[in-house]
Amino acid sequence: MKKNVFYAQSGGVTAVINASACGVIETARKNKAKLGRVYAGRNGILGALTEDMIDTTAESARTIAALKHTPGGAFGSARYKLKGLDKNRAEYERLIEVFKAHDIGYFFYNGGGDSMDTAQKVSQLGAELGYPVVCIGVPKTVDNDLPVTDTCPGFGSVAKYVAVSTREAALDVASMARTSTRVFILEVMGRHAGWIAAAGGLAGEAPGEPPHVILFPEIAFDEAAFLARVQESVGKYEYCVVVVSEGTRYADGRFLAEAGGKDAFGHAQLGGVAATVAQLVKAKLGLKYHYAIADYLQRAARHIASKVDVEQAYAMGKAAVELALKGENAVMPTIVRKSDQPYRWGVGKVALAEVANKEKKMPRDFITADGFGITPACRKYLAPLIRGEDYPPYKDGLPAYVSLKNQRVAKKLKSEFVLK
Amino acid sequence: MKKNVFYAQSGGVTAVINASACGVIETARKNKAKLGRVYAGRNGILGALTEDMIDTTAESARTIAALKHTPGGAFGSARYKLKGLDKNRAEYERLIEVFKAHDIGYFFYNGGGDSMDTAQKVSQLGAELGYPVVCIGVPKTVDNDLPVTDTCPGFGSVAKYVAVSTREAALDVASMARTSTRVFILEVMGRHAGWIAAAGGLAGEAPGEPPHVILFPEIAFDEAAFLARVQESVGKYEYCVVVVSEGTRYADGRFLAEAGGKDAFGHAQLGGVAATVAQLVKAKLGLKYHYAIADYLQRAARHIASKVDVEQAYAMGKAAVELALKGENAVMPTIVRKSDQPYRWGVGKVALAEVANKEKKMPRDFITADGFGITPACRKYLAPLIRGEDYPPYKDGLPAYVSLKNQRVAKKLKSEFVLK
Repeated sequence: MKKNVFYAQSGGVTAVINASACGVIETARKNKAKLGRVYAGRNGILGALTEDMIDTTAESARTIAALKHTPGGAFGSARYKLKGLDKNRAEYERLIEVFKAHDIGYFFYNGGGDSMDTAQKVSQLGAELGYPVVCIGVPKTVDNDLPVTDTCPGFGSVAKYVAVSTREAALDVASMARTSTRVFILEVMGRHAGWIAAAGGLAGEAPGEPPHVILFPEIAFDEAAFLARVQESVGKYEYCVVVVSEGTRYADGRFLAEAGGKDAFGHAQLGGVAATVAQLVKAKLGLKYHYAIADYLQRAARHIASKVDVEQAYAMGKAAVELALKGENAVMPTIVRKSDQPYRWGVGKVALAEVANKEKKMPRDFITADGFGITPACRKYLAPLIRGEDYPPYKDGLPAYVSLKNQRVAKKLKSEFVLK
Repeated sequence: MKKNVFYAQSGGVTAVINASACGVIETARKNKAKLGRVYAGRNGILGALTEDMIDTTAESARTIAALKHTPGGAFGSARYKLKGLDKNRAEYERLIEVFKAHDIGYFFYNGGGDSMDTAQKVSQLGAELGYPVVCIGVPKTVDNDLPVTDTCPGFGSVAKYVAVSTREAALDVASMARTSTRVFILEVMGRHAGWIAAAGGLAGEAPGEPPHVILFPEIAFDEAAFLARVQESVGKYEYCVVVVSEGTRYADGRFLAEAGGKDAFGHAQLGGVAATVAQLVKAKLGLKYHYAIADYLQRAARHIASKVDVEQAYAMGKAAVELALKGENAVMPTIVRKSDQPYRWGVGKVALAEVANKEKKMPRDFITADGFGITPACRKYLAPLIRGEDYPPYKDGLPAYVSLKNQRVAKKLKSEFVLK
């Protein structure tokens, strides 16, 4: 009578999403009396739609434990948003059909706001169709934009990477400024919210310490004010370190990244906010620049993951299974902050409907009045999230990340599902 | 009768150049009977020319020890190449004048090929002018292009950073390829030599493991062959990871970085080899791409420094002082490889004239016949250099890097020296 479990990773992967997978699988294995096999979706939800599932029981306890220190998505993730039930009921029905065929009674969906919406709908439709599925969300997003939960697993490690990298690069630039680069720009992720850029602010502790400027998506880019601040910093300290969010926009809503001119093929250049800012500094101030684009490095950097983040990612996976065993449905475990210093946190829960498709932006009072820095309130919030190091094991100088067998579950359905 | 010591950092700084400074200063302190004060140049050689020197005796033993785990140049470095004696004798005479005024009898110059040339000339001119100065080079360059020595301090840590980052980002891309990015490009340093790009090759061990393509400055860029390889990789593995050296060129000698189109101000775009390659992939193959530019992050990343590199950097600083005490002049200590597996190395020496202004390129047999990968010989050479982790101490989740007082030595000369 035991039902099987389906686990899927969704959206952009992180340095710790596999730690959540580890939490789900290890906790399910500890509750074998109540839970059947844990299947994982190959490439996330696509694996359920196309009946391409991975049997995690083929993996040893040691391999599953190693997921805790392995970045990326061990089963594959997907950028695939299921539309509303009214628009694409067939996809939801297909999920239920596959779950039914494989005797799956539990669905753990590890993702952000979109995924919570999907999990919520699956729960709803399963009940309607007479095949109830317990649907539990497992929070994950480097963007830190899920509401209710104190933070999202994945964010703390990106934050730590960005803070550490900013501090290190700033030491480099400071050493060389007299005869070389004056302005260094680090481009970080965060299309809609400035949480990651804000984390760069942790690099500096005393006034005047880099970064000297942070550009947030929440604050309209003011070219004159920006250039004045860069000039001022170079005047005072000989150099200027800028952390810029990829989502930084002009007052009219255009992304700076869209203003980067034409590429070698004459197409409008995309994704180049650092290049745009650098060229501005060169053209208007005549200062020598360098820029780095952290891109996937920042969210894959398990080697410098935050210990708090790893623990929270694991705890969310574990709590998801425990909530299911307690009879909960259509909920997501959350991280509840109990104190800032020392940082203490516990596990709470929230209905999926409360977090689905909602975005938590930076509060305005986390950004300084001039729009270029973080406030003490922001620092108090962010600082605990990057605490502690949780180094992976190394072999021959490189992190020993695990590879799974990812053995396929035999298909039971004759129908093929064609993805649109 | 004890002479003072002058130490200067030169050129681009590294994650471990301060470990060499630590080796020089600690070894000098242990030999107080024979050596006077250690002065450091503020902003490298500029500090000597402008008589702006730092008295390292003001720093505690604990602070000096902390240099071993602090990236960047603690006293400031400079991109400032002294011209030939025939062209700019005044600068060399000025150095001797400052050394004489401060009773400096030893000059330790921590840099690459250009700096070895300068140290060599100072030694020569001092003797000519009747103020002999013992000039010892301390090797440093992330480019790994100094001859004779097995490797250059600074390189091993960049190599480790690039190998680790490539492995991590590849896991990210592999997880998402089905529905998202197919081609990931990591741009790394190395204007003239492909050593750093080659290190990316360490990320993959078995055939087919990423990176799938490495672009070296030593191999003329063949667009058709490159695109075919990317297509093949995407066909086989669903994705393709490319590590590209900033120095990659077309057969006619132009840098790919120069071919990046126009910026927002209509200027030719520079420094964008990753963007150029990415746009090519998009335009010709229609594949979704992402790219990262490691820039200063790679050479400042003390948090993931190679233990071997840190040890060698320290050993070179220590050996430089010991060579001086043994009566050597115009030499540079070298790293001598004694065996590959296990890696054993010792300290040798070479005349500055043998290393000045010479560049060690990648041997052709370190690059696969197709020009896109590294050979077993290259791997055998590189692998030991990234071995071991040497984590800095952390405080509140961030590396606790040290700041020096950098207290100024009182000027003794009335003449001002104006830099050109």
